[in-house]
Amino acid sequence: MTLTRRDFAKLGTLTLAAGFAPLLHAQPSAKKTGYAVIGLGRIAGHFMPGARNTTNSQITALVSGHRDKADRIAAEYGIPSSSIYNYENFDEIAHNPAVDAVYVALPNSMHAEYTIRAAKAGKHVLCEKPMSTNVADAEAMIAACKAANVKLMIAYRCHYEPTNLRAVKLIRDGALGQVQAIESSFGFNMGPNEWRTNKKLAGGGPLFDVGIYCLNACRYLTGEEPEHIAAFASTIDHDGRFSEVEENVSWTMKFPSGIVASCNTTYGAPMEGYYRVHGAKGWLEVDQAFVYEGLRLRADFSGTQLDEPNPARDPSQFQAEAEHFSHCVQNNLEPQSPGEEGLRDMGYITQIYRSAGIAI
Amino acid sequence: MTLTRRDFAKLGTLTLAAGFAPLLHAQPSAKKTGYAVIGLGRIAGHFMPGARNTTNSQITALVSGHRDKADRIAAEYGIPSSSIYNYENFDEIAHNPAVDAVYVALPNSMHAEYTIRAAKAGKHVLCEKPMSTNVADAEAMIAACKAANVKLMIAYRCHYEPTNLRAVKLIRDGALGQVQAIESSFGFNMGPNEWRTNKKLAGGGPLFDVGIYCLNACRYLTGEEPEHIAAFASTIDHDGRFSEVEENVSWTMKFPSGIVASCNTTYGAPMEGYYRVHGAKGWLEVDQAFVYEGLRLRADFSGTQLDEPNPARDPSQFQAEAEHFSHCVQNNLEPQSPGEEGLRDMGYITQIYRSAGIAI
Repeated sequence: MTLTRRDFAKLGTLTLAAGFAPLLHAQPSAKKTGYAVIGLGRIAGHFMPGARNTTNSQITALVSGHRDKADRIAAEYGIPSSSIYNYENFDEIAHNPAVDAVYVALPNSMHAEYTIRAAKAGKHVLCEKPMSTNVADAEAMIAACKAANVKLMIAYRCHYEPTNLRAVKLIRDGALGQVQAIESSFGFNMGPNEWRTNKKLAGGGPLFDVGIYCLNACRYLTGEEPEHIAAFASTIDHDGRFSEVEENVSWTMKFPSGIVASCNTTYGAPMEGYYRVHGAKGWLEVDQAFVYEGLRLRADFSGTQLDEPNPARDPSQFQAEAEHFSHCVQNNLEPQSPGEEGLRDMGYITQIYRSAGIAI
Repeated sequence: MTLTRRDFAKLGTLTLAAGFAPLLHAQPSAKKTGYAVIGLGRIAGHFMPGARNTTNSQITALVSGHRDKADRIAAEYGIPSSSIYNYENFDEIAHNPAVDAVYVALPNSMHAEYTIRAAKAGKHVLCEKPMSTNVADAEAMIAACKAANVKLMIAYRCHYEPTNLRAVKLIRDGALGQVQAIESSFGFNMGPNEWRTNKKLAGGGPLFDVGIYCLNACRYLTGEEPEHIAAFASTIDHDGRFSEVEENVSWTMKFPSGIVASCNTTYGAPMEGYYRVHGAKGWLEVDQAFVYEGLRLRADFSGTQLDEPNPARDPSQFQAEAEHFSHCVQNNLEPQSPGEEGLRDMGYITQIYRSAGIAI
């Protein structure tokens, strides 16, 4: 791939955005990056068609405990039976030349093990968020990928999503003037018997799963790292869903410049993911901000009103992140949301839980 | 005035709302309650036409340091020259039988002095929010009014405003199911040389002035008192406006039931006053929620979508609060937002500032 002058200019502007991603449009390459998808749950069902829509990525292997399901998907994606693995024989993937990278779409607490095993097998790793369930695992994942000389990217969709990038660019370009405050929230009403309410698998409640979007958004919107964090957590509904993890978390953060942010997350109520950013010259809102489609940016600053619904449809966000990671793999570039980005969120999540009196 | 059966039914339902106000429609009464307006600034300019629109209230005296201004307003309201006072001869108001009550619309730190002097003059007191600049003053105001056997109401407009009452009623009626979390913010970009950035006059920054709406809303929306509060404050702009008070405050609260709330307030950015309430069955939003007109409620719960713009125009909110207080005066009833309500907010404001490391 060759970067055009325009690509370089974009790169220059956007990398000011504290590691926020330039949308580099990958050129068709001779060899597509082949992915083994580990865990064939809901989110893999978005990633696989997303990757298929790219010009530089393809699904070449599956890892699952459910052979029937894997067989069905393999047929759909033209994956040979010999490239279907289970959790016992997973390490044999090292000998599969069709697999360049893995996409880790397992329950949170299994991210570390499979990232590290994939790295040892010599495969690059695109790992879902949250990166892990604690800081130590995140550090071990980074170390394992470094030792194996493979790339590690955390699948922060919003870093590669045009409406979120547009919000960041408006802020960096000064449209809002000095930013003062942000609100953000994201949650939903959790069904019964989900692995996400099993602390061993999930690490915690909505903060790990959806609150992380608000946390990460406050960081990319400001381009700063939170310096102070205070939080409360609660469980109101005692109906069996929340015997292990919290139901609600509310937290406030203060950034080095003085920008403040207040956030909520819940597993007990429908809570559209959104943020509002308030600057001296006006405000912008993305609502919804964190869903797979239907994003909308509105803003009002210096006499300008914006209302920009994003017509993109799922799985475009997964396409964009697959494209970016494959581009990095093919051109030996560091991903815009590397392991270190996930590690930082793990640190802040730990602080939030500690402030709320919850051990993780 | 006679309460109809319907009024009683309403009263029964609405007083469940933790002291939130039933909208009793005052009957025409023989004698209107006469108000002396103390301080002829911006907000008095809303209150006076509001009171004029009622059937039970009238402006009968003015208190001002600016005689020219007072003369102009007196002519407009048919107030005799003998009923214009200044801050030196204010106490003579005791001898003015046309004055039943005062409306205190002075800078925050003067609320206590004039409430207490009015009480000693035997006049009922409708005092603007924030009630005072500290808890001790608020307590002294309540004690003075009790000792003088006069009524004290804090002018919390939203307690008498139909869209806010509608939100409370939807919540109390269970439309949202169990409430889990609330977001609320309110602020604006402060101009230079305002008394509201003078700590001696204002007591503090945006939290006293506009953040109090968010705090109070979280209390009336939940019907609960916050049990835990954590906050950060900051000043980003060093342009002379914020040499005495903070520019931004962000805080989070946890209520006894487990409901959490996150709030922002600022003097550094346009920040429409709003709240979002998230319950198990859906959400409601009032945006804007705290302005004089143009309020709008939207909600989505159990298959019902609401979009209710409120067509009421300023000064209808001031009319409603004057009507309520006059009704209480005429019928010897306790106002729905008595001094104790203001005192509670003063206590929480003190906690917020302490948590943010600001002495008040």
